[in-house]
Amino acid sequence: MQIEVISSVNEAQADRFTHRTVIVIDVLRATSTIVAALEAGAASILPVETVLEARALQCGEHVLAGERFCRKIPGFDLGNSPEEFTPAAVGGKRVVLTTTNGTRALHKAMRADYVLAGSLNNAAACAAAAAELRRDIVLLCAGSHNEFALEDGLCAGLLISELRRISPTVIEMNDLGAAMLGYYRSSGERLRDMLLGSTTGRKLIKNGNARDVDHCCRINTSSIVPRLQGDSLCQT
Amino acid sequence: MQIEVISSVNEAQADRFTHRTVIVIDVLRATSTIVAALEAGAASILPVETVLEARALQCGEHVLAGERFCRKIPGFDLGNSPEEFTPAAVGGKRVVLTTTNGTRALHKAMRADYVLAGSLNNAAACAAAAAELRRDIVLLCAGSHNEFALEDGLCAGLLISELRRISPTVIEMNDLGAAMLGYYRSSGERLRDMLLGSTTGRKLIKNGNARDVDHCCRINTSSIVPRLQGDSLCQT
Repeated sequence: MQIEVISSVNEAQADRFTHRTVIVIDVLRATSTIVAALEAGAASILPVETVLEARALQCGEHVLAGERFCRKIPGFDLGNSPEEFTPAAVGGKRVVLTTTNGTRALHKAMRADYVLAGSLNNAAACAAAAAELRRDIVLLCAGSHNEFALEDGLCAGLLISELRRISPTVIEMNDLGAAMLGYYRSSGERLRDMLLGSTTGRKLIKNGNARDVDHCCRINTSSIVPRLQGDSLCQT
Repeated sequence: MQIEVISSVNEAQADRFTHRTVIVIDVLRATSTIVAALEAGAASILPVETVLEARALQCGEHVLAGERFCRKIPGFDLGNSPEEFTPAAVGGKRVVLTTTNGTRALHKAMRADYVLAGSLNNAAACAAAAAELRRDIVLLCAGSHNEFALEDGLCAGLLISELRRISPTVIEMNDLGAAMLGYYRSSGERLRDMLLGSTTGRKLIKNGNARDVDHCCRINTSSIVPRLQGDSLCQT
């Protein structure tokens, strides 16, 4: 099995996704939030690229959620903090989500055979689901504003570590994959501090969202694997 | 002081270099070879982007050197193996060098205030020279065919480690810088094996150039700091 890690949405070329499984990673916070929303019983998540698209879908059956500049969008029901996505807020409902990087990455990945959403929270489950799909895997780090984001790289390293543990075949990876695996392995007990010190982590702390980092840095707390089916992410 | 690590030539936007010092890193092998050439007494190194440009400069006073697909270019005096650059081969002479990634990266960096060539071999000396220039620093990993190369990332991590050791001011870095510093620190005694296992390392072994990897993985064996002056790299 081949695993390719891509450092940011900017680096993603759609033709590299053909016949592959793509795991989109946006730890702070889109893919962690998508996992939380499905965990809380949301029926599905529709990722859209613009605020305008999201507003056009505003109706009683939809929950509008998302952020720009790490802040909730005015008039939306929810922001992009995983802990806002409670059963009371989203249970049984369709969530329309737009974020700066994560939803863009999901759209870019759509040419793949399968698209999953990965986070530190669901890494083991996500790796197991991806292995069962028997395709080469692309780990698409959403990054932040077209640049590599540390937390997404760490999650890519964790996913590779999980895939190596469960895969019956030899795993080959690109150089960024090897680097992220090594970097993740060196993190040990410092993972939370590393996330707090990352560019996005510092922005979230400044905006009063340090709790989100605490939520998103927990490893393998969820067995939910969001998978793109048509235009929406549902639980596999 | 701010340090930004850029993952490959492809990612390099010239406007990010203005008013900065750029250290171009192509461990396997261009910047290691440039250090070796100046160490052996070459008068200067002229990096050119194409084989055609190099051939146009062919004359008794120039040594033509370079590679395509990791192999010596037909009709050239030397390839791109650092150990070919002996005093007998290049002493007192001007070397015209064209390589797949490294010379392209040097050309991209030319808008910077200062351009240095960094490698594992000269990291401490290069970091000291860069710190003295009192500019923010860009570590431009040449990468391989527009993708991140593991050995360049490790060298970026080593350079940051050296800069932190000697800088009197606090160093801020982008997320890729933090990741590469962590990755380098985790390498320990395995650095040579990591280079041998990298994409370019494996290609070099296949082509019978494993000795080059042995040469390029040695840390701080040279005090030579190549610096771009006009169109050529000279010893500072």
